[in-house]
Amino acid sequence: MEPNVAAAKEALSHLEIETSDSAIRANSRDFFWYSPVLKDRLDHVTADFVVRPKSEAEVIEILKTCYAHDCPVTTRGAGTGNYGQAMPLAGGCVMHLRHLDKVKEIHAGRVITEPGVLLKDLDAACKEHSGQEIRMFSSTWATATIGGFIAGGSGGVGSCTWGSLRDLGNIIRLRVVTMEEEPRVLEFRGEELARVSHAYGTNGIITEIEMPLAPAYDWTEMFVAFDEFTSAMAFAEELANHDGILIKLANVFEAPIAHAYFQRVKPHVEAGTHLVGLMVAPHSLDGFLTFLGRRPEATVIYRSDDNDWARGPGPVFEYGWNHTTLRALKVDPSITYLQVRYGFPNHRDLVERMRTEFSPEVLQHLEVLKEGGKVIFAGLSLVKFTTEDRLDEIIRIHEEAGAMIFNPHRYTLEEGGRQTVDDRQLAFKREADPKGLLNPGKMIAWDDPDWSYQSMYAYPKLQAAE
Amino acid sequence: MEPNVAAAKEALSHLEIETSDSAIRANSRDFFWYSPVLKDRLDHVTADFVVRPKSEAEVIEILKTCYAHDCPVTTRGAGTGNYGQAMPLAGGCVMHLRHLDKVKEIHAGRVITEPGVLLKDLDAACKEHSGQEIRMFSSTWATATIGGFIAGGSGGVGSCTWGSLRDLGNIIRLRVVTMEEEPRVLEFRGEELARVSHAYGTNGIITEIEMPLAPAYDWTEMFVAFDEFTSAMAFAEELANHDGILIKLANVFEAPIAHAYFQRVKPHVEAGTHLVGLMVAPHSLDGFLTFLGRRPEATVIYRSDDNDWARGPGPVFEYGWNHTTLRALKVDPSITYLQVRYGFPNHRDLVERMRTEFSPEVLQHLEVLKEGGKVIFAGLSLVKFTTEDRLDEIIRIHEEAGAMIFNPHRYTLEEGGRQTVDDRQLAFKREADPKGLLNPGKMIAWDDPDWSYQSMYAYPKLQAAE
Repeated sequence: MEPNVAAAKEALSHLEIETSDSAIRANSRDFFWYSPVLKDRLDHVTADFVVRPKSEAEVIEILKTCYAHDCPVTTRGAGTGNYGQAMPLAGGCVMHLRHLDKVKEIHAGRVITEPGVLLKDLDAACKEHSGQEIRMFSSTWATATIGGFIAGGSGGVGSCTWGSLRDLGNIIRLRVVTMEEEPRVLEFRGEELARVSHAYGTNGIITEIEMPLAPAYDWTEMFVAFDEFTSAMAFAEELANHDGILIKLANVFEAPIAHAYFQRVKPHVEAGTHLVGLMVAPHSLDGFLTFLGRRPEATVIYRSDDNDWARGPGPVFEYGWNHTTLRALKVDPSITYLQVRYGFPNHRDLVERMRTEFSPEVLQHLEVLKEGGKVIFAGLSLVKFTTEDRLDEIIRIHEEAGAMIFNPHRYTLEEGGRQTVDDRQLAFKREADPKGLLNPGKMIAWDDPDWSYQSMYAYPKLQAAE
Repeated sequence: MEPNVAAAKEALSHLEIETSDSAIRANSRDFFWYSPVLKDRLDHVTADFVVRPKSEAEVIEILKTCYAHDCPVTTRGAGTGNYGQAMPLAGGCVMHLRHLDKVKEIHAGRVITEPGVLLKDLDAACKEHSGQEIRMFSSTWATATIGGFIAGGSGGVGSCTWGSLRDLGNIIRLRVVTMEEEPRVLEFRGEELARVSHAYGTNGIITEIEMPLAPAYDWTEMFVAFDEFTSAMAFAEELANHDGILIKLANVFEAPIAHAYFQRVKPHVEAGTHLVGLMVAPHSLDGFLTFLGRRPEATVIYRSDDNDWARGPGPVFEYGWNHTTLRALKVDPSITYLQVRYGFPNHRDLVERMRTEFSPEVLQHLEVLKEGGKVIFAGLSLVKFTTEDRLDEIIRIHEEAGAMIFNPHRYTLEEGGRQTVDDRQLAFKREADPKGLLNPGKMIAWDDPDWSYQSMYAYPKLQAAE
């Protein structure tokens, strides 16, 4: 099987093909550079061509044509992922779904949409239609697509109430095109959703999405300052445990994150300030203020509906999730991060232990998350990077302490996930992508079923750096 | 202080006064007869007159007038409470708020209403206006008022998601009239709400209510059958722990409750069937069915949107909360009940222990409830009543095992609650009802501050039975 990329490109030349080298390069990259490890491995990766289908029919044509010519196809939305998930390791075709941007139907509690719609545009359409919005979104809401979020994300703003994308009920239906001689169009619900959600487009291309909706409110965004990290962490968790106070975001930033990296917040905090970011429903504000009044250690320094800041901070959610890392990176390029799961019921203890062990080399950034009906923390810890060996050691110490790591310094599904093969995704790839042309190099189980996970996987067909 | 009831009635004669003896008697009763103990003590209780104000101004006039004549005032909504909370133990005036039934304002996430609106009418107005509904309601939704629910209730359908009325955020604001020489009108928020919510109208009269709203959905109502009680209980709890599946009700009925007492359900179950009742949001049905598919021990026997029952069961929520007791009582008048709190994390073990100890004398009826961010059970156990001594013994054994009892066989706030004085309510009664004329006999702390709680409190001024 020898790819004939040129033939595929030629056969698709009547579609919208990107020809500029700089645009092809730009469309071959995502936010992999958050990781110095991935930056080292993937910086040179480039597609041979980029195509932008305008309909599901064109998606089918592209997959069928590339199948015929054995041309790899890596699908992307906006490319805001951090795991290199949208990068074409073996070159070939990048299929960009930005033109599949129609919101098709909106009903009470659900929306049917194409995958290329920006999250913010999807929310705008749902709010305009009936005062609704999606349950959760990534901090890249303004630039990311709903398809990319589902194929490459796990949760985000709203997960403090609704849990993660993988949880039952947070995706209703996905329509998927396979990469076969004659591509099939399949509808997945229920157990089948796990085949292709968070699969990086390795085993099918999502062309339609049905998602649950929640009511849209004019969330009151806040920053709350603390002198003690422990108080800040307790505040965020206890607030999330108040069933009658509706929130969309609660996160915790260990000092000096706010002072060092949040430039518009800096004038309002000290280096020693630990910060909590919040989004609270306006009709829950009274309840929140009552909760606040019981905690004199907490000081609200910013309210989006009432503040005297000369320069506003912008959306508070753009300080959370992976935007925290982005803001830190802009100030200090040596910063990278980890993704950690601090599970119930020992989550607070575990955070304290990791903080004792590593601060300030590793600074705690926690996102409140619901998992199995309990409040837990997702850690997106900021790491002062020195060497890959030290990074691996930090990860090992977390894992030995019982803090699960979703390693963002790896480009495979397994290493970035739970470090085990997902049999459902693998089985479906065998069926839907028999030639292994979809996003090659991202599923170890496909390329090297006996891989031991003792060291970083290196995809053998990764483009050579020049 | 000698009440001059006749003078008060005369002074209020220009208002809507009920004169028929049978209507006065009907308006002097609530659902106290669920309890054989209360039935024994309170069956003869009757007001001297009933007045139905049409405005807050008339409420003020009634309170001012009755204050002047030392006439007790017991306020009621629809009288669907089970603790005798709306019964005028010392006679005097019953003030019925049914004409204060205006829904004043509806906004995104909140409603402002008068107290006498029926829960179903409030929901209808909110749904019509903007597809919203109240977060929680009692199973007496069709007949109870919002004011009565707040003054005399604790939670209900919706509490599996939103927690209890007392939780921060579940009531936004209450407007309250005091009973003084010159009644004052006060606005309570935050910490102040606890003064008068669930105070049986003993220390102020609620004339306006601001409540949070949730989106209204066409909830799919279901019954799910199990052969094993433990499976049914696990099913209800695990479902409630799925953060992405939105539910409004989850309850568990030990066999043979469904077969013995749910007449329209009876043809579809066996005597040994343990039943779970559910309300699931329509956009969560796919998630629910996936959850269901993993549990072959569960059999859906009824879906409101798809069934072949010759006679439908009516709303599934009318089988839950206190309607379970009502249905059992209609079949077997010797049935009464308990209200039990099975707290996290030992709730399931505690239920099993009580079941082992008492079944079938006490049958488990559990309502899934959120408390402090955790799923717990409220037990409204059905009790085959024999003697008061045995009932007290059953209660004692529950309490000794760690299952808190809110004793529905007592008419005082303290005994029906946590058996401790609520200092906030007592302090506010001193301020707002200096003569102690509001719903006399319901607050032990007012009448007998040194009461030991070793036996059932007997209000000394309780009307004598004839």
